[in-house]
Amino acid sequence: MISIVCGGAGFIGSNIIDRLLCDNHTVVCIDNLSLGSMTNIKSFEANPNFSFERLDLSNTGATIKFFNRFNDQSNNLEVWHMAANSDILAGVNDPDVDIKNTFETTKNILAGMHLIDAKKLYFASSSAVYGDMKGIPASETSAPLLPISNYGAMKLASEALISAAKESFLDVALLYRFPNVVGVPATHGVIYDFVGKLIHNPDLLPVLGDGQQRKSYLHVSDLVDAMFALRDYCKSGIDVFNVGPLDKGVHVKTIAEEVVKQQSPSAHIQYENKKQGWVGDVPIFSYSIDKLLATGWKPKLGSLEAIKKTVVEVIDQEKGNS
Amino acid sequence: MISIVCGGAGFIGSNIIDRLLCDNHTVVCIDNLSLGSMTNIKSFEANPNFSFERLDLSNTGATIKFFNRFNDQSNNLEVWHMAANSDILAGVNDPDVDIKNTFETTKNILAGMHLIDAKKLYFASSSAVYGDMKGIPASETSAPLLPISNYGAMKLASEALISAAKESFLDVALLYRFPNVVGVPATHGVIYDFVGKLIHNPDLLPVLGDGQQRKSYLHVSDLVDAMFALRDYCKSGIDVFNVGPLDKGVHVKTIAEEVVKQQSPSAHIQYENKKQGWVGDVPIFSYSIDKLLATGWKPKLGSLEAIKKTVVEVIDQEKGNS
Repeated sequence: MISIVCGGAGFIGSNIIDRLLCDNHTVVCIDNLSLGSMTNIKSFEANPNFSFERLDLSNTGATIKFFNRFNDQSNNLEVWHMAANSDILAGVNDPDVDIKNTFETTKNILAGMHLIDAKKLYFASSSAVYGDMKGIPASETSAPLLPISNYGAMKLASEALISAAKESFLDVALLYRFPNVVGVPATHGVIYDFVGKLIHNPDLLPVLGDGQQRKSYLHVSDLVDAMFALRDYCKSGIDVFNVGPLDKGVHVKTIAEEVVKQQSPSAHIQYENKKQGWVGDVPIFSYSIDKLLATGWKPKLGSLEAIKKTVVEVIDQEKGNS
Repeated sequence: MISIVCGGAGFIGSNIIDRLLCDNHTVVCIDNLSLGSMTNIKSFEANPNFSFERLDLSNTGATIKFFNRFNDQSNNLEVWHMAANSDILAGVNDPDVDIKNTFETTKNILAGMHLIDAKKLYFASSSAVYGDMKGIPASETSAPLLPISNYGAMKLASEALISAAKESFLDVALLYRFPNVVGVPATHGVIYDFVGKLIHNPDLLPVLGDGQQRKSYLHVSDLVDAMFALRDYCKSGIDVFNVGPLDKGVHVKTIAEEVVKQQSPSAHIQYENKKQGWVGDVPIFSYSIDKLLATGWKPKLGSLEAIKKTVVEVIDQEKGNS
């Protein structure tokens, strides 16, 4: 089986590649290296089953040309689509960021797959499609879907395009709605930000919002495990799954305190006097994973364990980088 | 109040303009005249409150430039966004049709509105966002949303973009999910197609599918009435409403027989041996309008009455055009 991993040099993409190579897949990693990096895939380079191609999937012509090379192998092909903007704030200020890097990559990947009649697509969607559920647990049957960030909006738009493509030519389309995912190689997210801020100034950790925002966090090891379990569970058709931990999550304050404890115990934590960290931030988000649990899969780590593990991992990573 | 009606030379857009002019609004009609036509807005031209501008809203620069002219009047502005592909089949064969004419028009209209800080948007979404509900009545709380046409997918993508824009700068965003709408000036749809086919060959009416597809139909007079009632009902925030008749709809067979009866009684009706008229067609679709009814609004015509009225109207229209 040939696995094309779009956005494979990113945080989650590189973890997926690791697993695919363990399963003896031939992996072609595509990335434009705008958010991903060669460092994340360095360890795969010696593997003869691995190859990397620098390609901007928002470029229609280049994407079509790339897929066309696999014309004779389309029966043996699966596509993992993780190529997207992951900087929610950037997309709040400029919708074009998510339109170009999330929506247009989806559009072009589908056009490429259609051209060669490739049939299997696994897509990294997001809990952000739900918008602000005001604390009601978001399940796959929650509606209406009113995302409050362009990040979430373009994830939903991508789901919609894939859904229409399923009617037209795909055999399998899995839409994974990711929660906040933590782990390494960290490229963005709350822990990465906090660690970076404390490297910049070991005495002060400024936090966006009042610290009372509560979200659930899944460790990337659990995420990848769930993705592969669902891939084996759903052999045909289209389906959508929330992926997340069992608990209701942890407060931003807890994360800030954990980072400070591990990295710079004397630092002062400074909160803002507002509930929302930024426009597009959902202050309290809880997530139903009942549909996922019904398949028999269970996460190994809770939100707090995932956070604690990742804080140590990210501090290590950033020490290594400095 | 200045009302910018995007896609105003189309079927529904021109009916909205009629109502806005009756309410003494200043109306600026925008259309690229690809699916709309000057004939549809001819009767407004003598009205000093009406102006028309030919503009392709999928052109970002031109759209921004257009909105910028209203920079000083943005407090007094509302935008009706009806500019979209309405040819579902065209978008099945080529996703770019809906991406360009539905999604990109939404993107550009929002960019233009953001630039001048315009706050009110009324958007023509569609029951097609629901996909194939297998006969379960589609309500605003139905999920997951898995559209089976690019037409529906790009309506959903547009809803999502608008939802994010509401969080960022809009005051009011109304998402109307239209059913099949009938009436004149007809530019597309099942009745228009049947009448055209019988003009071409008065002896034979070939029907796509087995005729057992059942959908609900709303007359455009009821649709526009509901849109204005909801505009007055929802003064702030974002909301989504199904708009439709009270009944469960009529079969395509009934429509075919009505057109034949009125236009060419001796014609033979020829069905296909398949349930779905085309890829992306939802054979049986029923629609919950409970949320709309709870606002106090009620449709005047049922699906069958709307069909009968429209058959006569469209035959008249096409006689006039030939």
